[in-house]
Amino acid sequence: MQSVADTKVAVRPHAKSHKCPEIAKRQIARGAVGICCQKISEAKAFADAGINDILLSNELVGSKKIAAALSLARQLQARSGQLTICVDHPQAAADLNHAAQAAGLRIPVLIELDVGQHRCGVADPRASVALIDQVHRSSGLQFKGLQAYHGSAQHTRTQTDRQAAIDQACHLITRVQRDAAALGIDCATVTGAGTGSYLLEARSGVYTEVQPGSYALMDVDYGRNDWGLSDMPVFENSLFIHTSVMSRPDDRAVVDAGLKSMSVDSGLPVVFGRPELVYQKASDEHGVIVASTQTGQPGQPGQPDQPNELVGRLPALGQTVLLVPGHCDPTVNLYDVLHVMDQGVLIDVWPISARGLLF
Amino acid sequence: MQSVADTKVAVRPHAKSHKCPEIAKRQIARGAVGICCQKISEAKAFADAGINDILLSNELVGSKKIAAALSLARQLQARSGQLTICVDHPQAAADLNHAAQAAGLRIPVLIELDVGQHRCGVADPRASVALIDQVHRSSGLQFKGLQAYHGSAQHTRTQTDRQAAIDQACHLITRVQRDAAALGIDCATVTGAGTGSYLLEARSGVYTEVQPGSYALMDVDYGRNDWGLSDMPVFENSLFIHTSVMSRPDDRAVVDAGLKSMSVDSGLPVVFGRPELVYQKASDEHGVIVASTQTGQPGQPGQPDQPNELVGRLPALGQTVLLVPGHCDPTVNLYDVLHVMDQGVLIDVWPISARGLLF
Repeated sequence: MQSVADTKVAVRPHAKSHKCPEIAKRQIARGAVGICCQKISEAKAFADAGINDILLSNELVGSKKIAAALSLARQLQARSGQLTICVDHPQAAADLNHAAQAAGLRIPVLIELDVGQHRCGVADPRASVALIDQVHRSSGLQFKGLQAYHGSAQHTRTQTDRQAAIDQACHLITRVQRDAAALGIDCATVTGAGTGSYLLEARSGVYTEVQPGSYALMDVDYGRNDWGLSDMPVFENSLFIHTSVMSRPDDRAVVDAGLKSMSVDSGLPVVFGRPELVYQKASDEHGVIVASTQTGQPGQPGQPDQPNELVGRLPALGQTVLLVPGHCDPTVNLYDVLHVMDQGVLIDVWPISARGLLF
Repeated sequence: MQSVADTKVAVRPHAKSHKCPEIAKRQIARGAVGICCQKISEAKAFADAGINDILLSNELVGSKKIAAALSLARQLQARSGQLTICVDHPQAAADLNHAAQAAGLRIPVLIELDVGQHRCGVADPRASVALIDQVHRSSGLQFKGLQAYHGSAQHTRTQTDRQAAIDQACHLITRVQRDAAALGIDCATVTGAGTGSYLLEARSGVYTEVQPGSYALMDVDYGRNDWGLSDMPVFENSLFIHTSVMSRPDDRAVVDAGLKSMSVDSGLPVVFGRPELVYQKASDEHGVIVASTQTGQPGQPGQPDQPNELVGRLPALGQTVLLVPGHCDPTVNLYDVLHVMDQGVLIDVWPISARGLLF
């Protein structure tokens, strides 16, 4: 993240990628201003582990979640920390304000803009400014600025298309900032960005904070992006699934890591350091690995006439291989701990404290 | 499972679907002879919860897994239970035999046949019989019969195609049984089958035991099968994800259940009891729901000109809906507990004791 440090933009890594307080602490020790979380229960796990400054970069709706957030905000404020919350709807802002007033708290709030992902957030600039004005006038809330995460830009493959997406986001943000300023309201914080685009936001002159998460672990899908910028750091994979061969029919190796060992929503894993092997099919607790042909295409399972030369590349019964998952975030969420390895030696075990916290 | 009881074939439900000892105990109380597990660590969790008869319906390779299996086998045998293990390779059989002899144990073993899934198992009949003979002559092993699970038949949509797949499996099984009998070896047990095909195996005259698992919970994908047989029971969905709307842009409802709340390997979830709603897109912790048009096609997100009539069907901010996951097995594996509801009232909380046990 040194390339961001040069821009004087704050780094607030997203903890949903790793869900591991040990990683968050190391990020803060290296200059991060705090973390992002996506769920209030997840934020609680990180707060309990000693993280003080948490942005809930997501909408918080309903009396139960609001009560949990106020309790956590009180816990953090008592130790000079803070919990910041996003809002994209007048009713959600009103509910949060009333609950905060009743609790004698003042909660930092960002308005989420829909800058192109078409998921949460306010897309219409006038509606955004009306909501900013409402929050600014709410005594239980403290308006801080804008959440402007462009999720779909993260996995856009070319640098040109990503730049265009972030330019468009900046255009909306500056319009909202200008209209808010006309009401005397300063959108001081502009936060967003992920591993796929964070350097573009950092250099935009518009964002004050970036939220990359996956960079710490990396996965197959992010590896497919064309990173473009010559000074963009190349992040290595640090997240691996250790698996071993449980069956060795003539033309394939069947390993003991399948759908319950990794998420395949962004595609199948790759075999680390073994480009001649193709993880071809995942079932619940099995993975089928075949040897690739010289054209780089996977062999077909069930065809015993596959050349011996290819079959000879397959790992033997009992042999272990490392898999790099297609998508790190939902993969980490499957495990209770990370086994930390250095040169093949287990040096630590870090709890994935926020695993399975979905509230 | 009454339809199976009529055939005098044993029912041994697969516990990998639910990973919950409370469900396994209820299945055994209703006549199941035991359970299947897919991992040794999973089998240990069920044994610790009081289940006595466990078939590890999967290959067990490597000294660490063998040591764990022998320890568990001893634990079960001490209380008149048993752990049965599958083998599909001469080396795996030899390793297990030597370890069992050293431990002074005799382990019940099935030879796994590849009856059409092309994953684990022995496909060649002569190699199968050679392996049967090897196990039969191993003093640390007790040959019991054949594991013959046809996984790919489970999600074959038409009854005709499923019947053809199971007929082919039976053809291979009977050939292996005949050749083993010529050596004086009885393949007494023939076990296999899943929710998609179990009645075909039960009525084959070849299988002595069926292993359906998903029937207890059900999911969207199994619901897509044409069940054909007129007396095939229709299993209802009992597994739901409780989610609420966190954002309500004009043309969509964004809920708080995404890739970390359910597995999407077999497709996206459906909204239970609300066919007019389409869960259209999952991200890590968000799901986008749109209202379907009158043609049953989903609306397009981001198009604010969607008819008001459709938008009016969407759930409001904060409203809850139930989702039925695409694939129950890896979805259950994401959670620590099942909340058991009766008529909308929480009546129990059942630990998913074998969640995340992948060894």
